Amino acid sequence: MKIYRANIIYTPTPGKLEIIPHGYVVVKSNGLVEGVYKELPENMDWRRQVMDFGDKLLIPAFNDLHVHAPQYRNMGLALDLELLPWLNTYTFPEETKYADPEYARRLYRRFVHELWMQGTMRSAVFATIHPEATRILADLFIQAGMGAMVGLVGMNRNSPDTLQNTTDEVIEGMKMLKAHLDEHGDGRVMPIITPRFVPSCSEKMLTALGEYAKETGLPVQSHLSENRSEISWVHELEPDTTCYGGAYDKYGLFGQTPTLMAHCCYTDGEEMELMRKNGVYVVHCPMSNSNLSSGMAPIRKFLNAGIPVALGTDVSAGHHMSMLRVMQYAIQVSKLNYAQTKGEMPFLSLSEVFYLATKGGGSFFGQVGSFEPGYEFDALLVDDSYLNYDNYTLEQRLERYIYLGDDRDIKRRFCRGVELTEPVM
Amino acid sequence: MKIYRANIIYTPTPGKLEIIPHGYVVVKSNGLVEGVYKELPENMDWRRQVMDFGDKLLIPAFNDLHVHAPQYRNMGLALDLELLPWLNTYTFPEETKYADPEYARRLYRRFVHELWMQGTMRSAVFATIHPEATRILADLFIQAGMGAMVGLVGMNRNSPDTLQNTTDEVIEGMKMLKAHLDEHGDGRVMPIITPRFVPSCSEKMLTALGEYAKETGLPVQSHLSENRSEISWVHELEPDTTCYGGAYDKYGLFGQTPTLMAHCCYTDGEEMELMRKNGVYVVHCPMSNSNLSSGMAPIRKFLNAGIPVALGTDVSAGHHMSMLRVMQYAIQVSKLNYAQTKGEMPFLSLSEVFYLATKGGGSFFGQVGSFEPGYEFDALLVDDSYLNYDNYTLEQRLERYIYLGDDRDIKRRFCRGVELTEPVM
Repeated sequence: MKIYRANIIYTPTPGKLEIIPHGYVVVKSNGLVEGVYKELPENMDWRRQVMDFGDKLLIPAFNDLHVHAPQYRNMGLALDLELLPWLNTYTFPEETKYADPEYARRLYRRFVHELWMQGTMRSAVFATIHPEATRILADLFIQAGMGAMVGLVGMNRNSPDTLQNTTDEVIEGMKMLKAHLDEHGDGRVMPIITPRFVPSCSEKMLTALGEYAKETGLPVQSHLSENRSEISWVHELEPDTTCYGGAYDKYGLFGQTPTLMAHCCYTDGEEMELMRKNGVYVVHCPMSNSNLSSGMAPIRKFLNAGIPVALGTDVSAGHHMSMLRVMQYAIQVSKLNYAQTKGEMPFLSLSEVFYLATKGGGSFFGQVGSFEPGYEFDALLVDDSYLNYDNYTLEQRLERYIYLGDDRDIKRRFCRGVELTEPVM
Repeated sequence: MKIYRANIIYTPTPGKLEIIPHGYVVVKSNGLVEGVYKELPENMDWRRQVMDFGDKLLIPAFNDLHVHAPQYRNMGLALDLELLPWLNTYTFPEETKYADPEYARRLYRRFVHELWMQGTMRSAVFATIHPEATRILADLFIQAGMGAMVGLVGMNRNSPDTLQNTTDEVIEGMKMLKAHLDEHGDGRVMPIITPRFVPSCSEKMLTALGEYAKETGLPVQSHLSENRSEISWVHELEPDTTCYGGAYDKYGLFGQTPTLMAHCCYTDGEEMELMRKNGVYVVHCPMSNSNLSSGMAPIRKFLNAGIPVALGTDVSAGHHMSMLRVMQYAIQVSKLNYAQTKGEMPFLSLSEVFYLATKGGGSFFGQVGSFEPGYEFDALLVDDSYLNYDNYTLEQRLERYIYLGDDRDIKRRFCRGVELTEPVM
């Protein structure tokens, strides 16, 4: 058992911050939270074990539910095109390099290191079509002690010849990855079925991936309704489905197992209803959507409909791996939606985006992203003293950290109860 | 004379980055640039004086043409309201505190320190209605060695009783400030006539400020067409003018002397034509406009019309003092405009926003913001080595610094040829 004392802030529900000044969180030896307390129970044995972090903030760690590991080298570059030409011009050529395991190891080390630096303890990651590179990425997560769902990407049409795999290759690759992680992982690093998006995958590949999902129960991730040209293209490619999401659904890749769909900028009507019915997650990537001029996802509508929502950086269409930035953009994009609908869609509050970045995304991994009893203790210790030079409340301190803070402020990082040291870069 | 060697990047024109790998900039003893060279002229005396910064980047310093110094404490807070209620609920109460010179000194020190930290060597600053506090702010700029236009704010209606001055008070205060700076400054810290905005200033005050501008030739700064409710309100208050800008123009505060107008989210038609004719600057504050859900200024249209454009953080409606962030938002907002006009307004390029953040805004201070001969040497030395782990070009290195960098990366700061040390905080 470990007991930490600090200013504790978390969000059991989206609407309100739970704030315990100089409170205690008790973490069991299995890494799960026993409870959060204003005062410790009368037990001298407990009191001796307290690790007092003084006036710092202790918050749940961040979860990035949509990020492309092999695009890390392009982060902060090449943002002058929209989605489809951006993929062909910048992204596919970079991903092709991951055929070389040594290249992959060198860049993936930096990627995992940066997740650690930014306080992102769990992520849902697109790798590439390359099984060896993808295994290397999964192993780096295991070594770092961080949680991740790692996807070997399936893509066999409308992509460069050098960046395609066959249906057999993606299924075989996933089986190898799963076997490897079943043997070497502790359940925190898992495979996830990853058709790139409908235009990249033939009927045969989507069918096989859907069957593999059904057979294994493994989760699924892909892209949905990011950009108008993409949506038109999907309608041409799948003329017998009435919405883009319906194309995934047809193949058993839309909530038949736990499913993440990134973007959903233009999701509405039938597609939204299908997501609600099937419990499909929206992964909102507002930084990326701004960079690629994709659009502004109607997150308020998703929340009102009871659809689960998480946040993602979508590096490298998103230009930064900080979930703080994603929270800022999520609020700002929701304000533009608010202005353009003349107030019909109230914008997101601070506690709502903090919820999405912690418990909202964390829920995809189980009981992650909160300090409620039974939750895995994923946490960040934040020293905001340089921002706290006047008489700010704890809620204001959290707000200023989200708007003004960066990786420098994170002093300790915990994943499932274990404090993580800096990964080798 | 001083000679610096580094990777030199600047923008004489908006369309193209001028890049000199391992080039030389020669700075005369008066602080002005003598020239930039790929190789030094054959002169042994020059060669002995070279200060070699190795592989770092040397770029013009940033210029923030719209920022509210007394809102510094609120930075990263209180972004849950639109402009008019935001002013009344959060901003006016904070500005009222600047009646106390000791409060002002304590917070203004931090503000000037942060400008230095973020590499912003010149700024156009709103202070408050308080002459003593405003003089303290001007003195802090002088001590720091940074350039600034400092405005004592005029406001005598539609504001709290505790935050109003009379027409006589604002004119007397400006005269005192001008006399003080004429005596103690070196021309880099100057007064600027600052009616808050039309709704805050009576006809009498606007008339007197216009006459004072005419009499002294001093520049003017204010707010224009930020938000729809504000524009309607101005139409009610000034029924005989046909556009918001026309109300300033009527009083001689719209380009009769050099003029900055912040925001211009809804400026078009007659107002745009008046700005063009009078050479009024647009100060684009996209971070603020997103935070207060104000709107998206049509910057491409302003540039096409030949209207001068600068960038501003607009702290604390903008939540961060980094001009890097403002450049990111300027591109992103232009992309949303691009998407919503179906491509009619091409979005801003990296070299365009870099130009706006350096020479675009710098031109308001004279020959500032470039390394062309005769320009004041305002510069930042940037160490991006942690971002430059692979084979990136210099243009890519600049792009990654703009998207991924922060204050840590700035190793030296120069203003008019002098390297500035860290101001007392």
